[in-house]
Amino acid sequence: MNRRMVFFVTGRVVIIIGLLMILPILIGLCFHEGLDTLLPIVKAALCAIVFGLLLTCRPPKNRSIHIREGIAITSLSWLLTVFFGALPFVFSSAIPSLVDAFFESASGFTTTGSSIINDIEALPNSLLFWRSFTHFIGGMGVLMFAIALLPGSSSENIYLLKAEVPGPTFEKVLSRIREVARTFYIIYAVFALVLFCVLMAAGMTPFDAIIHTFSTAGTGGFSNYNDSVAHFNSVPIELILSVGMLMFGVNFNLYFFALRGHWKIFVKSEELRWYLGIVLVAMIALTASVANEYDSLLICLKDTFFTVSTVITTTGFGTVDFVQWPLFSQLIILMLMFIGGCAGSTAGGLKVSRIVLYLKMGLKKFRQASSPNRINVVTYENKPIGDHIQNDIALYFLLYIGVFCTGILLLSFENLDFGTTVSAVTTTFNNIGPGLGDLGPKSNFSTLSDFSKIVLSFVMIAGRLEIVPLILLFAPSTWRR
Amino acid sequence: MNRRMVFFVTGRVVIIIGLLMILPILIGLCFHEGLDTLLPIVKAALCAIVFGLLLTCRPPKNRSIHIREGIAITSLSWLLTVFFGALPFVFSSAIPSLVDAFFESASGFTTTGSSIINDIEALPNSLLFWRSFTHFIGGMGVLMFAIALLPGSSSENIYLLKAEVPGPTFEKVLSRIREVARTFYIIYAVFALVLFCVLMAAGMTPFDAIIHTFSTAGTGGFSNYNDSVAHFNSVPIELILSVGMLMFGVNFNLYFFALRGHWKIFVKSEELRWYLGIVLVAMIALTASVANEYDSLLICLKDTFFTVSTVITTTGFGTVDFVQWPLFSQLIILMLMFIGGCAGSTAGGLKVSRIVLYLKMGLKKFRQASSPNRINVVTYENKPIGDHIQNDIALYFLLYIGVFCTGILLLSFENLDFGTTVSAVTTTFNNIGPGLGDLGPKSNFSTLSDFSKIVLSFVMIAGRLEIVPLILLFAPSTWRR
Repeated sequence: MNRRMVFFVTGRVVIIIGLLMILPILIGLCFHEGLDTLLPIVKAALCAIVFGLLLTCRPPKNRSIHIREGIAITSLSWLLTVFFGALPFVFSSAIPSLVDAFFESASGFTTTGSSIINDIEALPNSLLFWRSFTHFIGGMGVLMFAIALLPGSSSENIYLLKAEVPGPTFEKVLSRIREVARTFYIIYAVFALVLFCVLMAAGMTPFDAIIHTFSTAGTGGFSNYNDSVAHFNSVPIELILSVGMLMFGVNFNLYFFALRGHWKIFVKSEELRWYLGIVLVAMIALTASVANEYDSLLICLKDTFFTVSTVITTTGFGTVDFVQWPLFSQLIILMLMFIGGCAGSTAGGLKVSRIVLYLKMGLKKFRQASSPNRINVVTYENKPIGDHIQNDIALYFLLYIGVFCTGILLLSFENLDFGTTVSAVTTTFNNIGPGLGDLGPKSNFSTLSDFSKIVLSFVMIAGRLEIVPLILLFAPSTWRR
Repeated sequence: MNRRMVFFVTGRVVIIIGLLMILPILIGLCFHEGLDTLLPIVKAALCAIVFGLLLTCRPPKNRSIHIREGIAITSLSWLLTVFFGALPFVFSSAIPSLVDAFFESASGFTTTGSSIINDIEALPNSLLFWRSFTHFIGGMGVLMFAIALLPGSSSENIYLLKAEVPGPTFEKVLSRIREVARTFYIIYAVFALVLFCVLMAAGMTPFDAIIHTFSTAGTGGFSNYNDSVAHFNSVPIELILSVGMLMFGVNFNLYFFALRGHWKIFVKSEELRWYLGIVLVAMIALTASVANEYDSLLICLKDTFFTVSTVITTTGFGTVDFVQWPLFSQLIILMLMFIGGCAGSTAGGLKVSRIVLYLKMGLKKFRQASSPNRINVVTYENKPIGDHIQNDIALYFLLYIGVFCTGILLLSFENLDFGTTVSAVTTTFNNIGPGLGDLGPKSNFSTLSDFSKIVLSFVMIAGRLEIVPLILLFAPSTWRR
């Protein structure tokens, strides 16, 4: 383990986080916020920068990053990012408790969107901006940002990207890693800019448009209104956000290749077809289940489209209170929560590509059972998927269920009802935001104990980093020289 | 597909079921039950025997049984066994509805023990006997019984056993299959006889002892009292049953080899160590969680021992109403429901050996992530487990979760609360019996709709046959010539 390199890269990430806090300070200045509001953010920024400088003061001689270093850097950067991201809330006393602020910051960077704040509208604009900005940073990844921004040899960054970009990797690791990271961030920023303009055109104020653009792009779900998106009560805005969320739930590789002229990749992509197919089927099932509660089918369709889009992309914006819907619809929503968006998008969940492979592997098992001598090849995106990758993906499911059950067991000390407990872990682990039951879209997590908040914060980070890096961070063998 | 052979073997099984109905008739005669009680059972027996004779009237020339025939025979025999096993209840109007009787019969043969009967004590003894006897037949398997009993060439029966005996198979298929089946049934019967005597010695009437022996041996859970085992209010009986259930939850291979003088196998068996370890840990966790609700620690230990034993062996006898316990204990119980007993026992669930392998495979995934070049071998029972078997076991988990979710989705049309719905599928799929919530140990399944009862009946059979055979029965490709 090259510890010095781990601390060096992590330190650079922490410095970046500190520097990014300049943006909310500028926003605060625009809104003529006083010193007592902005000084805490300045303090938090300085803390991060000083701590980062301390970590980077001894540049390592050996700059090689192998898998173990990649894993340590990824999880350590994320933990420190969440910690320093929480400081503006603590210093300004907007969220006096460090545990609460850590939860809110973890929820922000992991693009979960669960909140412990009861009255969001009471927050100053600078903090509201920072809160949603964490979605935007976390959506594409803090390390991806660091790679795109900073100089350094290229090959060493491959392991970082591998550990941070969600979903299984089938393609060969790209060689020009910095170029890819930059292109990804440019696509991400351009899409966000377009969304911002369209939201403005639909009648949002510039500040509302910024907040909701960040939350949509990162598929996070924080809003600056207590009612979330329902506040606007506007069909165009809901439709724009629905389409926007779906776009950010698509694998960014598709946009990357399309930009290089390979337009056909959109038609060819198996994951995209499944993703849109699931959205369609879920919309039909939900509409059939709740149509009789609506006067107009069009309004019902709009609501189910928004709900499916916000849940499958794991954004978690609230418009309708689906806790009131029949159990069947709630289960459909629960399943969408587990499915999540495409691999390589800003969305959480198990990812569509894994779900598709699970289905195909399940079918293979049946075919094998009835004719064990026939060779059964699982193909995905027109490529045969080797036994090794299948094994790896199946194992991921075991880990996933393992962490999920552990989370539920730890949360059960709250002695809430069963449905609420399960949904709280589901919604945080898949980085969605609101749960079902007592933690539905119209409520929040503020009533939980500190222990549960810490558990759920780690569950969110485990979900965002797809488990392995976070757990290995605490394994002694990772740190062995 | 050798259809004629499929129908021939299935027919023989149905005849056996018909002949076995002579026993409840004899019991009825002992208790001086009238013709109106016994005639319906005679009718049901005749129906089964005549139907069986029709199926076997054309003996097949080609007697070969391959995998596909094995699968078809297994699932078809089970479906017909459950159907004909339901007839005594229908004909006697004890359970007038065929759907209800099918549910009760499925619950009996699959050793689940969920019931739709509100007043069990109102049933005549002959039917109570039949109801519990289905546990005894189903526990070791109807096909195993047929193989043990009937002549026929040996090698053809291997596929039948493979499809009926629960748990993953690591050992080479035994060659002298009939001898094995007979020895298994002899061990099973001797253990049951011992249990019967001990229960009598503890103060049960002979009839009560028979009923509870059948239910314990099959790890089913039907009782002849509405209060289940709580009726006796006797510490010795509860302790005897606790130990009895645990014994029938052990892999029968161990007893088989021990009988041949290999006593050390009990010490060497990794599955047994894990099984007893899980029992111990669960007891400690439950006791810690509920001890403050008891005056005496000994009584508390007795209750948690009984609960752990009844749940992990998926028997489902009721003594304490664990629905009243804190959520943490309920979750422990829920986890035990999924774990289940050892492979090759009469218990349901995922089986201890699978759980252990899942744990080991999960650990392997972490080791692989941090050092991908090191070779990671998963060993079990001191043997390395090949990638192929690992893959197969991981795939089983996917199927398991798939059927589980489908069951929940289908049951959600009842619009019960989330916890009740999940626990109903959990308890039937793992062949336990009582659920949590509204379907806890003190309630039953009679309030559900016919549709839900049919769904849960199939879920029980899918659980008993470990999914694959039942689903392949309905695949057209299985029946292709």
